[in-house]
Amino acid sequence: MMDKIWANSGDSHFLEPEDLFAQALPPRLAERMPRSEKFDGYELLHVDGQTIRRPMPKPIRDGEFKGQTIEQISHRPPGSKDARLRLADLDEEGIWGEVTYPSLGMWATLIRDPELVREAAKALNDWAVEALQGLSPRFVATASLPLLDTADAVAELQRCAGLGYHAVFLPTVPPAGRPHWNDEAWDPLWAAAEEAGQVIAFHIGTDGENVVYRGRGGALLNFNETSYGGQRAAAMMIASGVFDRQPTLKVLVSEGGATWVPFLGDRLNESARQQPMFVWPKLDRQPKDYMNRHIYASFQHDETAIPTFTSMGYRNVMFGSDYPHMEGTYGHTQKTLHNLFDGIDDATRDRITMGAFLELFPHVGRPPAN
Amino acid sequence: MMDKIWANSGDSHFLEPEDLFAQALPPRLAERMPRSEKFDGYELLHVDGQTIRRPMPKPIRDGEFKGQTIEQISHRPPGSKDARLRLADLDEEGIWGEVTYPSLGMWATLIRDPELVREAAKALNDWAVEALQGLSPRFVATASLPLLDTADAVAELQRCAGLGYHAVFLPTVPPAGRPHWNDEAWDPLWAAAEEAGQVIAFHIGTDGENVVYRGRGGALLNFNETSYGGQRAAAMMIASGVFDRQPTLKVLVSEGGATWVPFLGDRLNESARQQPMFVWPKLDRQPKDYMNRHIYASFQHDETAIPTFTSMGYRNVMFGSDYPHMEGTYGHTQKTLHNLFDGIDDATRDRITMGAFLELFPHVGRPPAN
Repeated sequence: MMDKIWANSGDSHFLEPEDLFAQALPPRLAERMPRSEKFDGYELLHVDGQTIRRPMPKPIRDGEFKGQTIEQISHRPPGSKDARLRLADLDEEGIWGEVTYPSLGMWATLIRDPELVREAAKALNDWAVEALQGLSPRFVATASLPLLDTADAVAELQRCAGLGYHAVFLPTVPPAGRPHWNDEAWDPLWAAAEEAGQVIAFHIGTDGENVVYRGRGGALLNFNETSYGGQRAAAMMIASGVFDRQPTLKVLVSEGGATWVPFLGDRLNESARQQPMFVWPKLDRQPKDYMNRHIYASFQHDETAIPTFTSMGYRNVMFGSDYPHMEGTYGHTQKTLHNLFDGIDDATRDRITMGAFLELFPHVGRPPAN
Repeated sequence: MMDKIWANSGDSHFLEPEDLFAQALPPRLAERMPRSEKFDGYELLHVDGQTIRRPMPKPIRDGEFKGQTIEQISHRPPGSKDARLRLADLDEEGIWGEVTYPSLGMWATLIRDPELVREAAKALNDWAVEALQGLSPRFVATASLPLLDTADAVAELQRCAGLGYHAVFLPTVPPAGRPHWNDEAWDPLWAAAEEAGQVIAFHIGTDGENVVYRGRGGALLNFNETSYGGQRAAAMMIASGVFDRQPTLKVLVSEGGATWVPFLGDRLNESARQQPMFVWPKLDRQPKDYMNRHIYASFQHDETAIPTFTSMGYRNVMFGSDYPHMEGTYGHTQKTLHNLFDGIDDATRDRITMGAFLELFPHVGRPPAN
């Protein structure tokens, strides 16, 4: 048996109870929250008066997961929707603390009514902080925010900070009708997050449509495409001067890898160097400086994540298991960590598995044996 | 005076004579080629029966380039449109060989008539090979291809190989109406390129609209966005199995940096590892293997390009000056090369400044003193 390598994870997901909104919201609101009706080969998704018809995911034809759908595979680990069982899964995999994203919150971008989004976010956040952080400080729940109105988002962020949250989840693109993250409309949110000590946690794959390419190689191409949303969100905050106004604000970009960070830093520096007359607002520092100081990034399997830390001067490289999803390391976390870190010095391993995470969430601490 | 560091450049641009098409094409075709009429504050661009009205680039308000437009700055070097003067510029800057992209060819995506594109490409390619390679083997001209019809593109590629071309220029996105580079419609082009020994040379910023983001930070954000087209084009060729069918075909992606290559390799490997049931066509190797073997990438100022080579196992990192453009190193090439390579071992410097380029274009050789 190999020695266990413990890691904190900058990326995981929790599947909330299906009846969460029915239990927590008044019926007139609960009935407008996302609800799926399944038929032969398709489902109807009802959200806030809209109905979206979509094909049911097809069962996989052969191999290890024959007969299962992506959803089934992604929720196969026992702890995907049970926090106590999850702690046992984490122990088995060697994950100590984890940033935990909501699953129901991912649907919020389909809702057009500010009141509905606001009340649903409250219900979800009340539930998650108790179910997860109430059970163990190893869970770092991320609050869902009502983004149709910045003042609502600020109020809910402040309320969640009071509940004990340490991070808020943002999609890489704001909901339809709202401006991009570089717009001044969001400045109060960044100011409130800094003041309340909340980490901004973007999760990739939340831009909207995830099937951009079809035909040959589509799966690989769409997987690649998901990374760009996180890159853009980080660039938007830097380019719009957020970190000059909020010098202690920290941002986590989950699941999109880490090697892009110094690369994008170089790109932005080149733009600032060669086209200074077009750079507006003027920034106090070089763009890459903000990238290195303020942006943290989680990866799963990427072998380049290690030289990104050791050779490119980017310190905020963080492991993430993406538990329980299919792209993650569930079932092979120890193998992945050994592949990544065997033969690598302890300081590097500690920074990537523990240190970068603990800089954002020091209260989580380390596993007792470590 | 610092020692001169010589480099080959994987990225430069030549401005053809404005009357090239008028001289080379019959009037009925020549009059449909791109032509600009400038008015007070705007211009009308006439192409193949379409007229596009666009604002004239605004003169820069202050600083080093006060009163000039981007176009003027980008064509300020004496050799931008004169090949003999260009050789003197190259000597001064310390550039030996260079891949030279057409400027007029960048307009081809606006043309909808296959005959017009075909005849214009011939005229442009006949002119460039004589004006550039006819003067010096230090120029590696890139042929423009008529992409509205794959058979036309194949025929022109083969004709250009006969004229002495070593590389063909492709935009990162095919013209409107044609499928993406992962489609089987392009398979004959890849086969013909391999057979004729032509390097496929993508230049970034050729996807169409280059102003994606407005508002705060727009210049930085749009500059970043340009890199993605080259990444997608490389991923499309890999994911669609091109290199299983064309195992000696080489691809250059110019101006988009190099650090993305091993990162994207890791992303594609993760997709292939975690979602093998969705990967179609099946590939003979891991995606990253193709990335490392077949994709060459040029950068200008990026400091991460060096650890990409020394620490990430990616050998095909190539310097590019982007002469004469504003994003490039004209006027400070030696300073850039010294910043990059002072204190770096000779083998690394030689690979990035000379070796990767010479693997694609061995006939260019090295400067006499080197």
